[in-house]
Amino acid sequence: MSVEANGSSAAGATAGGSLQSICYERGSLRLLDQTEENVQMQSDGCLITINGKLIQMGRTPRMLLEANGSSAAGATAGGSLQSICYERGSLRLLDQRKLPLETVYLDVKDSTDGWTAIRDMVVRGAPAIAIAAALSLAVEVCNHDFNGTSEDASSLLIKKLEYLVSSRPTAVNLSDAVEKLRSLVLKTVETATEAKTVFQAYIDAAETMLIDDVASNKAIGFHGAKHLRSNLEGLEKISVLTHCNTGSLATAGYGTALGVIRALQSEGFLEKAFCTETRPFNQGSRLTAFELVHDQIPATLIADSAVAALMKAGHVNAVIVGADRIAANGDTANKIGTYNVAIAAFHHGIQFYVAAPITSIDLSISSGEQIVIEERSAKELLHSDGGRGKQVAASGISVWNPAFDVTPARLITAIITEKGVIIKKASDEAFDIKGFIETAK
Amino acid sequence: MSVEANGSSAAGATAGGSLQSICYERGSLRLLDQTEENVQMQSDGCLITINGKLIQMGRTPRMLLEANGSSAAGATAGGSLQSICYERGSLRLLDQRKLPLETVYLDVKDSTDGWTAIRDMVVRGAPAIAIAAALSLAVEVCNHDFNGTSEDASSLLIKKLEYLVSSRPTAVNLSDAVEKLRSLVLKTVETATEAKTVFQAYIDAAETMLIDDVASNKAIGFHGAKHLRSNLEGLEKISVLTHCNTGSLATAGYGTALGVIRALQSEGFLEKAFCTETRPFNQGSRLTAFELVHDQIPATLIADSAVAALMKAGHVNAVIVGADRIAANGDTANKIGTYNVAIAAFHHGIQFYVAAPITSIDLSISSGEQIVIEERSAKELLHSDGGRGKQVAASGISVWNPAFDVTPARLITAIITEKGVIIKKASDEAFDIKGFIETAK
Repeated sequence: MSVEANGSSAAGATAGGSLQSICYERGSLRLLDQTEENVQMQSDGCLITINGKLIQMGRTPRMLLEANGSSAAGATAGGSLQSICYERGSLRLLDQRKLPLETVYLDVKDSTDGWTAIRDMVVRGAPAIAIAAALSLAVEVCNHDFNGTSEDASSLLIKKLEYLVSSRPTAVNLSDAVEKLRSLVLKTVETATEAKTVFQAYIDAAETMLIDDVASNKAIGFHGAKHLRSNLEGLEKISVLTHCNTGSLATAGYGTALGVIRALQSEGFLEKAFCTETRPFNQGSRLTAFELVHDQIPATLIADSAVAALMKAGHVNAVIVGADRIAANGDTANKIGTYNVAIAAFHHGIQFYVAAPITSIDLSISSGEQIVIEERSAKELLHSDGGRGKQVAASGISVWNPAFDVTPARLITAIITEKGVIIKKASDEAFDIKGFIETAK
Repeated sequence: MSVEANGSSAAGATAGGSLQSICYERGSLRLLDQTEENVQMQSDGCLITINGKLIQMGRTPRMLLEANGSSAAGATAGGSLQSICYERGSLRLLDQRKLPLETVYLDVKDSTDGWTAIRDMVVRGAPAIAIAAALSLAVEVCNHDFNGTSEDASSLLIKKLEYLVSSRPTAVNLSDAVEKLRSLVLKTVETATEAKTVFQAYIDAAETMLIDDVASNKAIGFHGAKHLRSNLEGLEKISVLTHCNTGSLATAGYGTALGVIRALQSEGFLEKAFCTETRPFNQGSRLTAFELVHDQIPATLIADSAVAALMKAGHVNAVIVGADRIAANGDTANKIGTYNVAIAAFHHGIQFYVAAPITSIDLSISSGEQIVIEERSAKELLHSDGGRGKQVAASGISVWNPAFDVTPARLITAIITEKGVIIKKASDEAFDIKGFIETAK
């Protein structure tokens, strides 16, 4: 995995001489027309048709890449920070271990590089991990000089996918993504006569995952901003508090809760974003603060313990957080501290929103009671820098370090998804999430 | 200021050949009888008479010193950790900058050493600072070879006291203490014919401050433990959460909120103590955790953001915190995050106690609305280890770092003082603090 530091041009990275079915330029997208049908898109818009099928999307990967200026790492322009820089045949991942002090992108040339990047925490965030894994294999087979049959191609892909899952065996998004891609490969090889047909189908599917995730985030941002503007219409501008990192660094781009903040900012409705430090791993002070500064969004960092004082001082109009998992009744598991913030918001009469894709909703879990809280290493509290620095706490002290907590639905104002905003029934103040999903289909 | 590291005997430190009016042994106290009256005390008790006057006290300084074993820094025995080790003619301060990794005591030989120790944060905590300053000058004049008149002695003391205030001009306890000592010196010199009479009066007064603070803490612990046992009598043992550091390291010894926890532990009523990390300066993980481990109290450290999850899990029976200042209505200013904890306790129906000496109550302030929240350096959040380590947060991010917050009286179950516990009138759920103080006098 070669290292390319901050400032080098992302656009100049590889791409090789392989066939380009997706050609991006800022404001335009051209696809190799494989069915002779026309491809259309709005220049900055959310919708494109590919092969006659409507695909909801935001910016394309290349557009996202270029939106940051000539360099992907540049702190300029209007585009949001990108942790995944992809064009066909080339993948570069922002090394999040070095953030916020260094902005370094790593070239990922194959699934081995992808596996290492995931295991070594170069990339983090459930959606981002799944997409990085899928794209690392897409890059490998795109640049592959392959002489085998379509069955050989299929076997190779299946083997590599299984290998990629082993980089983070507990990541549900990763195993889900791999399962989908595996099915697609097995289906394709049934009719394909050439290896390149199998590879092409895989590459298309991996790229669609990237496009879909960004489009989903953009839609969450759109729906969230619209809802908040309507719900807080007496205010000219609003200030929003968020917890942990739910932005471009955790997703393929734009973000969930941070996507709503980005949308509010781009619509001129954001006064200021507040981000918590998010102890013990400091995702807020390291990553969210980095994204907010990068995107030139007015932002202030606070200690987790200052949340209630900030609310009492009248500085917060709404809270928006992400979700690890949402139960059927709306109870939401998210980064430890979310429940603290929700109670403080409730106490001060401040709206509390959860922003997450529909895939985060688990209808098989009726309530948060069924969610087991896993614990992380004591070292995150005992040593500085989330466990990576020197010892700061007293030797011999026991530690309780839960990874997340569960915020009950009654403390949540609404759940913002890519399909719209789930609000409570006025009658009994409960979410009808199942009904919402069925209607949205 | 000479350095004496962990393990050397505190008892062996200096003391010189000067006249000893206070002779301590574990379990006994002998005072030079200057009025021919008898001196009596309980061996482990709270009351002694000096010169026929009843003085409430716990352990004497030397007893405290020895209770930790032969070494003041030893992690053994039943005594609580000591940040101030004093016997007449000798003062040693635990260097809190090096905690929790190193236990190093600094010899303080005069007011210049005292001034430096306060400015450089060797000693912290409002009561501890005031007492350390007073004692540093007591040591200086105790060992002083002085040839001047009583007026010269008075002038010297006044000049040195003014100098000591300048070490931390904003510390109210320090300036209050200096003012009291100044008055005493001026009153003594009116009748004194010799310099040594003035010095002796000063030394006695400084030592009384130390004794009184420890006695006050012990009384807070006694009243608090009694009240909690009575209020939670259905439970065999209780678990208590505390925030920040209110122990031996912030006071002359034993502590306020941590004093109550110590008392609960010594009475066998404590299941476990939980301490928060207390961001951004980590007083909880560095200092409170250190004290709890030192005193062999079963204890667990949590992130500030894990408070609500801990309560929801049913692990906390009561919260006890200290106070920077208490308004006449009971509103309490304390370390940032206290208000967060209070809201979470209220939400979960958990009792929330403030433990502080009467001197922390400011009847001139009718409510917390009048308390101005001061802000501390952004660096505490931007760099690791409370601002002393390397940069961890994103460059360019704004920071809001309030030093404390105000918890409204309605979230406070009771206020534990050295004179007893202030509870709410059943009728209107308000504290009658003024009435309590008048009755207690």
